Amino acid sequence: MDMKETRIGGEQIYDGIIVHLYKDDVTLPNGKTAVREVIRHQGAVCVVAIDNEENIYLVKQFRYPFNDIITEIPAGKLDAGETPLEGAARELREETGIVANNYLYLGELYTSPAFLDEVIHMYLATDLTFVEQDPDEDEFVEVEKIKLNDFVKEIMNGKIPDSKTQTAVLKAYLSLQSNS
Amino acid sequence: MDMKETRIGGEQIYDGIIVHLYKDDVTLPNGKTAVREVIRHQGAVCVVAIDNEENIYLVKQFRYPFNDIITEIPAGKLDAGETPLEGAARELREETGIVANNYLYLGELYTSPAFLDEVIHMYLATDLTFVEQDPDEDEFVEVEKIKLNDFVKEIMNGKIPDSKTQTAVLKAYLSLQSNS
Repeated sequence: MDMKETRIGGEQIYDGIIVHLYKDDVTLPNGKTAVREVIRHQGAVCVVAIDNEENIYLVKQFRYPFNDIITEIPAGKLDAGETPLEGAARELREETGIVANNYLYLGELYTSPAFLDEVIHMYLATDLTFVEQDPDEDEFVEVEKIKLNDFVKEIMNGKIPDSKTQTAVLKAYLSLQSNS
Repeated sequence: MDMKETRIGGEQIYDGIIVHLYKDDVTLPNGKTAVREVIRHQGAVCVVAIDNEENIYLVKQFRYPFNDIITEIPAGKLDAGETPLEGAARELREETGIVANNYLYLGELYTSPAFLDEVIHMYLATDLTFVEQDPDEDEFVEVEKIKLNDFVKEIMNGKIPDSKTQTAVLKAYLSLQSNS
Protein backbone atom coordinates (compact mmCIF):
# COMPACT_ATOMS: atom_id res chain seq x y z
CA MET A 1 0.00 0.00 0.00
CA ASP A 2 1.29 3.48 -0.82
CA MET A 3 1.16 5.40 2.45
CA LYS A 4 3.46 8.34 1.81
CA GLU A 5 2.35 11.90 2.54
CA THR A 6 4.04 14.69 0.59
CA ARG A 7 4.47 18.24 1.84
CA ILE A 8 3.01 20.86 -0.53
CA GLY A 9 3.25 23.90 1.72
CA GLY A 10 3.04 25.20 5.24
CA GLU A 11 4.38 27.65 7.78
CA GLN A 12 6.24 27.82 11.06
CA ILE A 13 3.80 28.70 13.84
CA TYR A 14 6.21 29.08 16.74
CA ASP A 15 9.98 28.96 17.25
CA GLY A 16 10.53 28.54 20.99
CA ILE A 17 13.02 27.23 23.50
CA ILE A 18 12.03 23.55 23.34
CA VAL A 19 9.05 23.63 21.00
CA HIS A 20 9.34 24.42 17.28
CA LEU A 21 5.86 24.11 15.81
CA TYR A 22 5.01 23.80 12.11
CA LYS A 23 1.68 23.54 10.33
CA ASP A 24 2.20 21.76 7.01
CA ASP A 25 -0.14 20.96 4.12
CA VAL A 26 0.31 17.47 2.68
CA THR A 27 -1.16 15.30 -0.05
CA LEU A 28 -2.46 11.90 1.08
CA PRO A 29 -2.11 8.62 -0.86
CA ASN A 30 -5.69 9.07 -2.15
CA GLY A 31 -4.87 12.49 -3.61
CA LYS A 32 -6.72 14.49 -0.97
CA THR A 33 -4.97 17.13 1.09
CA ALA A 34 -4.64 17.30 4.88
CA VAL A 35 -3.03 19.46 7.57
CA ARG A 36 -0.19 18.05 9.68
CA GLU A 37 0.82 19.78 12.91
CA VAL A 38 4.43 18.87 13.70
CA ILE A 39 6.59 19.74 16.67
CA ARG A 40 10.31 19.56 15.93
CA HIS A 41 12.56 18.79 18.92
CA GLN A 42 16.36 18.64 19.23
CA GLY A 43 16.43 15.11 20.68
CA ALA A 44 17.28 13.79 24.13
CA VAL A 45 18.96 11.04 26.12
CA CYS A 46 18.12 8.99 29.22
CA VAL A 47 20.14 6.66 31.43
CA VAL A 48 19.30 3.60 33.52
CA ALA A 49 22.16 3.71 36.05
CA ILE A 50 22.55 0.54 38.12
CA ASP A 51 25.23 -0.01 40.77
CA ASN A 52 26.84 -3.27 41.91
CA GLU A 53 24.14 -3.78 44.58
CA GLU A 54 21.42 -3.61 41.87
CA ASN A 55 20.20 -0.18 42.93
CA ILE A 56 18.79 2.09 40.23
CA TYR A 57 19.21 5.88 40.52
CA LEU A 58 16.14 8.07 39.95
CA VAL A 59 15.39 11.77 39.85
CA LYS A 60 12.25 13.49 41.09
CA GLN A 61 11.34 16.82 39.61
CA PHE A 62 8.39 19.11 39.14
CA ARG A 63 6.85 18.75 35.69
CA TYR A 64 4.81 21.82 34.86
CA PRO A 65 2.44 20.21 32.30
CA PHE A 66 1.20 17.84 35.04
CA ASN A 67 1.59 20.31 37.95
CA ASP A 68 3.18 17.43 39.84
CA ILE A 69 6.46 15.86 40.93
CA ILE A 70 7.36 12.96 38.62
CA THR A 71 9.87 10.13 39.13
CA GLU A 72 12.11 9.57 36.12
CA ILE A 73 15.50 8.17 35.21
CA PRO A 74 18.21 10.83 34.59
CA ALA A 75 17.61 12.46 31.21
CA GLY A 76 17.83 15.64 29.25
CA LYS A 77 18.01 17.35 25.90
CA LEU A 78 21.04 16.94 23.71
CA ASP A 79 23.31 19.96 23.44
CA ALA A 80 24.32 21.15 19.96
CA GLY A 81 27.17 19.09 18.52
CA GLU A 82 27.01 16.48 21.26
CA THR A 83 26.79 12.73 20.52
CA PRO A 84 24.04 10.82 22.34
CA LEU A 85 26.62 9.00 24.49
CA GLU A 86 28.28 12.29 25.46
CA GLY A 87 24.88 13.72 26.34
CA ALA A 88 23.99 10.67 28.42
CA ALA A 89 27.24 10.90 30.40
CA ARG A 90 26.78 14.67 30.90
CA GLU A 91 23.18 14.43 32.08
CA LEU A 92 23.94 11.52 34.43
CA ARG A 93 26.84 13.45 35.99
CA GLU A 94 24.87 16.72 36.28
CA GLU A 95 21.75 15.23 37.78
CA THR A 96 23.13 12.49 40.05
CA GLY A 97 26.89 13.01 40.40
CA ILE A 98 27.52 9.59 38.86
CA VAL A 99 30.20 8.70 36.33
CA ALA A 100 29.71 5.31 34.64
CA ASN A 101 32.52 3.24 33.17
CA ASN A 102 30.26 1.02 31.09
CA TYR A 103 27.42 1.99 28.73
CA LEU A 104 25.06 -0.32 26.81
CA TYR A 105 22.83 1.25 24.14
CA LEU A 106 19.15 0.35 24.63
CA GLY A 107 17.86 1.90 21.39
CA GLU A 108 15.72 4.84 20.38
CA LEU A 109 12.38 6.00 21.73
CA TYR A 110 9.94 8.05 19.63
CA THR A 111 7.85 9.71 22.32
CA SER A 112 4.75 10.64 20.29
CA PRO A 113 5.36 10.03 16.56
CA ALA A 114 1.97 11.25 15.30
CA PHE A 115 2.90 14.93 15.80
CA LEU A 116 6.34 15.11 17.50
CA ASP A 117 9.75 14.16 16.07
CA GLU A 118 11.44 13.84 19.48
CA VAL A 119 13.90 10.91 19.69
CA ILE A 120 15.28 9.82 23.05
CA HIS A 121 18.42 7.65 23.03
CA MET A 122 18.34 5.15 25.91
CA TYR A 123 21.36 3.77 27.78
CA LEU A 124 22.11 1.30 30.54
CA ALA A 125 25.05 2.55 32.65
CA THR A 126 26.95 0.24 35.02
CA ASP A 127 30.27 0.20 36.91
CA LEU A 128 29.43 3.49 38.63
CA THR A 129 31.69 5.98 40.40
CA PHE A 130 30.27 8.76 42.56
CA VAL A 131 31.62 12.29 42.16
CA GLU A 132 29.57 15.37 42.91
CA GLN A 133 26.19 16.48 41.58
CA ASP A 134 26.32 19.43 39.20
CA PRO A 135 22.76 20.46 38.33
CA ASP A 136 21.88 23.20 35.86
CA GLU A 137 21.12 26.50 37.52
CA ASP A 138 17.35 26.70 38.07
CA GLU A 139 17.02 22.90 37.93
CA PHE A 140 15.52 21.43 41.10
CA VAL A 141 16.06 17.69 41.26
CA GLU A 142 16.01 15.14 44.07
CA VAL A 143 17.97 11.92 43.59
CA GLU A 144 16.94 8.63 45.16
CA LYS A 145 17.96 5.02 44.77
CA ILE A 146 15.86 1.87 44.97
CA LYS A 147 16.44 -1.80 44.22
CA LEU A 148 15.89 -2.49 40.50
CA ASN A 149 13.48 -5.36 41.24
CA ASP A 150 11.34 -3.14 43.46
CA PHE A 151 11.29 -0.38 40.86
CA VAL A 152 10.23 -2.85 38.14
CA LYS A 153 7.31 -3.80 40.41
CA GLU A 154 6.35 -0.12 40.71
CA ILE A 155 6.39 0.15 36.91
CA MET A 156 4.29 -3.01 36.53
CA ASN A 157 1.83 -1.63 39.11
CA GLY A 158 1.31 1.54 37.07
CA LYS A 159 3.00 3.91 39.53
CA ILE A 160 5.67 5.27 37.15
CA PRO A 161 3.95 6.91 34.16
CA ASP A 162 6.95 8.48 32.36
CA SER A 163 7.44 6.78 28.99
CA LYS A 164 11.26 6.79 28.77
CA THR A 165 11.52 5.51 32.35
CA GLN A 166 9.10 2.61 31.76
CA THR A 167 10.65 1.61 28.46
CA ALA A 168 14.35 1.94 29.33
CA VAL A 169 14.05 0.28 32.74
CA LEU A 170 12.06 -2.69 31.41
CA LYS A 171 14.57 -3.11 28.56
CA ALA A 172 17.50 -2.91 31.00
CA TYR A 173 15.79 -5.42 33.33
CA LEU A 174 15.15 -7.94 30.53
CA SER A 175 18.65 -7.38 29.12
CA LEU A 176 20.27 -8.08 32.52
CA GLN A 177 18.02 -11.15 33.04
CA SER A 178 19.06 -12.64 29.72
CA ASN A 179 22.77 -12.13 30.54
CA SER A 180 22.63 -13.65 34.04
CA MET B 1 12.74 20.24 48.82
CA ASP B 2 10.12 22.67 47.53
CA MET B 3 9.94 22.06 43.78
CA LYS B 4 6.63 23.63 42.83
CA GLU B 5 6.39 26.11 39.94
CA THR B 6 3.53 28.61 40.02
CA ARG B 7 1.96 30.18 36.95
CA ILE B 8 1.97 33.98 37.03
CA GLY B 9 0.89 34.68 33.46
CA GLY B 10 1.07 33.53 29.89
CA GLU B 11 -0.74 33.21 26.61
CA GLN B 12 -2.07 30.64 24.19
CA ILE B 13 0.21 30.50 21.14
CA TYR B 14 -1.77 28.08 18.94
CA ASP B 15 -5.08 26.25 19.14
CA GLY B 16 -4.94 23.50 16.54
CA ILE B 17 -6.38 20.11 15.69
CA ILE B 18 -4.09 18.00 17.91
CA VAL B 19 -1.71 20.60 19.30
CA HIS B 20 -2.79 23.31 21.78
CA LEU B 21 0.33 25.30 22.63
CA TYR B 22 0.73 27.65 25.61
CA LYS B 23 3.63 29.82 26.72
CA ASP B 24 3.39 30.38 30.48
CA ASP B 25 5.44 32.44 32.89
CA VAL B 26 6.15 30.70 36.20
CA THR B 27 7.96 31.39 39.45
CA LEU B 28 10.60 28.84 40.44
CA PRO B 29 11.26 27.59 44.01
CA ASN B 30 14.19 30.05 44.26
CA GLY B 31 11.93 33.01 43.45
CA LYS B 32 13.23 33.51 39.91
CA THR B 33 10.90 33.42 36.93
CA ALA B 34 11.05 31.14 33.90
CA VAL B 35 9.11 30.41 30.71
CA ARG B 36 7.34 27.08 30.29
CA GLU B 37 6.19 25.94 26.86
CA VAL B 38 3.34 23.47 27.27
CA ILE B 39 1.45 21.45 24.70
CA ARG B 40 -1.98 20.36 25.89
CA HIS B 41 -3.36 17.15 24.34
CA GLN B 42 -6.72 15.41 24.68
CA GLY B 43 -5.26 12.03 25.69
CA ALA B 44 -5.06 8.71 23.90
CA VAL B 45 -5.28 4.93 24.23
CA CYS B 46 -3.30 1.95 22.92
CA VAL B 47 -3.97 -1.78 22.87
CA VAL B 48 -1.74 -4.87 22.97
CA ALA B 49 -4.06 -7.42 21.29
CA ILE B 50 -2.93 -11.05 21.65
CA ASP B 51 -4.80 -14.05 20.26
CA ASN B 52 -4.88 -17.63 21.54
CA GLU B 53 -1.86 -18.56 19.39
CA GLU B 54 0.19 -15.78 21.05
CA ASN B 55 0.17 -13.56 17.98
CA ILE B 56 0.21 -9.79 18.54
CA TYR B 57 -1.56 -7.47 16.08
CA LEU B 58 0.31 -4.44 14.79
CA VAL B 59 -0.42 -1.50 12.52
CA LYS B 60 1.96 0.15 10.09
CA GLN B 61 1.31 3.71 9.10
CA PHE B 62 3.08 6.73 7.69
CA ARG B 63 4.14 9.15 10.41
CA TYR B 64 4.73 12.58 8.93
CA PRO B 65 7.17 13.90 11.60
CA PHE B 66 9.59 11.06 10.70
CA ASN B 67 8.68 10.87 6.98
CA ASP B 68 8.58 7.11 7.45
CA ILE B 69 6.31 4.11 7.99
CA ILE B 70 6.29 3.14 11.67
CA THR B 71 5.16 -0.10 13.32
CA GLU B 72 2.90 0.48 16.33
CA ILE B 73 0.21 -1.24 18.35
CA PRO B 74 -3.36 -0.06 17.60
CA ALA B 75 -3.89 3.36 19.20
CA GLY B 76 -5.61 6.67 18.83
CA LYS B 77 -6.85 9.85 20.44
CA LEU B 78 -9.77 9.72 22.84
CA ASP B 79 -13.04 11.13 21.52
CA ALA B 80 -14.86 13.68 23.68
CA GLY B 81 -16.89 12.03 26.45
CA GLU B 82 -15.39 8.60 25.86
CA THR B 83 -13.85 6.52 28.65
CA PRO B 84 -10.34 5.13 28.01
CA LEU B 85 -11.72 1.58 27.78
CA GLU B 86 -14.37 2.65 25.25
CA GLY B 87 -11.67 4.42 23.23
CA ALA B 88 -9.43 1.36 23.32
CA ALA B 89 -12.22 -0.91 22.07
CA ARG B 90 -13.17 1.58 19.33
CA GLU B 91 -9.61 2.08 18.06
CA LEU B 92 -8.88 -1.66 18.09
CA ARG B 93 -12.05 -2.36 16.09
CA GLU B 94 -11.47 0.51 13.62
CA GLU B 95 -7.83 -0.26 12.90
CA THR B 96 -7.75 -4.07 12.98
CA GLY B 97 -11.34 -5.36 12.90
CA ILE B 98 -10.82 -7.05 16.27
CA VAL B 99 -13.29 -7.17 19.16
CA ALA B 100 -11.78 -8.32 22.45
CA ASN B 101 -13.74 -9.95 25.25
CA ASN B 102 -11.11 -9.39 27.92
CA TYR B 103 -9.21 -6.20 28.80
CA LEU B 104 -6.45 -5.76 31.37
CA TYR B 105 -5.35 -2.20 32.22
CA LEU B 106 -1.57 -1.72 31.88
CA GLY B 107 -1.42 1.81 33.33
CA GLU B 108 -0.74 5.30 32.05
CA LEU B 109 2.06 6.56 29.82
CA TYR B 110 3.23 10.20 29.91
CA THR B 111 4.88 10.53 26.51
CA SER B 112 7.07 13.60 27.12
CA PRO B 113 6.24 15.18 30.50
CA ALA B 114 8.71 18.10 30.29
CA PHE B 115 6.52 20.00 27.81
CA LEU B 116 3.55 17.80 26.82
CA ASP B 117 0.59 16.70 28.98
CA GLU B 118 -0.39 13.77 26.74
CA VAL B 119 -1.49 10.66 28.67
CA ILE B 120 -1.87 7.33 26.86
CA HIS B 121 -3.91 4.64 28.62
CA MET B 122 -2.49 1.18 27.86
CA TYR B 123 -4.48 -2.08 27.65
CA LEU B 124 -3.84 -5.77 27.08
CA ALA B 125 -6.72 -7.28 25.07
CA THR B 126 -7.25 -11.05 24.85
CA ASP B 127 -10.03 -13.49 23.85
CA LEU B 128 -10.27 -11.91 20.40
CA THR B 129 -13.06 -12.10 17.81
CA PHE B 130 -12.51 -10.92 14.24
CA VAL B 131 -15.16 -8.73 12.62
CA GLU B 132 -14.35 -6.24 9.87
CA GLN B 133 -11.87 -3.38 9.79
CA ASP B 134 -13.44 0.08 9.88
CA PRO B 135 -10.69 2.69 9.45
CA ASP B 136 -11.28 6.43 9.62
CA GLU B 137 -11.62 8.02 6.22
CA ASP B 138 -8.17 9.26 5.15
CA GLU B 139 -6.44 6.81 7.50
CA PHE B 140 -4.06 4.43 5.70
CA VAL B 141 -3.11 1.53 7.92
CA GLU B 142 -1.71 -1.94 7.25
CA VAL B 143 -2.33 -4.64 9.84
CA GLU B 144 0.08 -7.50 10.48
CA LYS B 145 0.47 -10.19 13.10
CA ILE B 146 3.61 -11.68 14.56
CA LYS B 147 4.39 -14.03 17.45
CA LEU B 148 4.66 -12.05 20.69
CA ASN B 149 8.05 -13.60 21.53
CA ASP B 150 9.45 -12.57 18.14
CA PHE B 151 8.11 -9.03 18.51
CA VAL B 152 9.65 -8.71 21.99
CA LYS B 153 12.99 -9.66 20.39
CA GLU B 154 12.51 -6.89 17.80
CA ILE B 155 11.85 -4.42 20.63
CA MET B 156 14.93 -5.59 22.54
CA ASN B 157 17.00 -5.26 19.35
CA GLY B 158 15.96 -1.60 18.99
CA LYS B 159 13.87 -2.08 15.85
CA ILE B 160 10.60 -0.70 17.26
CA PRO B 161 11.12 2.89 18.38
CA ASP B 162 7.53 3.95 19.24
CA SER B 163 7.28 4.60 23.00
CA LYS B 164 3.75 3.29 23.67
CA THR B 165 4.50 0.14 21.67
CA GLN B 166 7.72 -0.61 23.55
CA THR B 167 6.24 0.09 26.97
CA ALA B 168 2.86 -1.60 26.57
CA VAL B 169 4.22 -4.72 24.86
CA LEU B 170 6.99 -5.24 27.44
CA LYS B 171 4.46 -4.76 30.26
CA ALA B 172 2.04 -7.20 28.64
CA TYR B 173 4.88 -9.72 28.09
CA LEU B 174 6.04 -9.55 31.73
CA SER B 175 2.45 -9.64 32.95
CA LEU B 176 1.68 -12.80 30.93
CA GLN B 177 4.97 -14.40 32.08
CA SER B 178 4.14 -13.87 35.74
CA ASN B 179 0.68 -15.41 35.26
CA SER B 180 1.86 -18.53 33.41
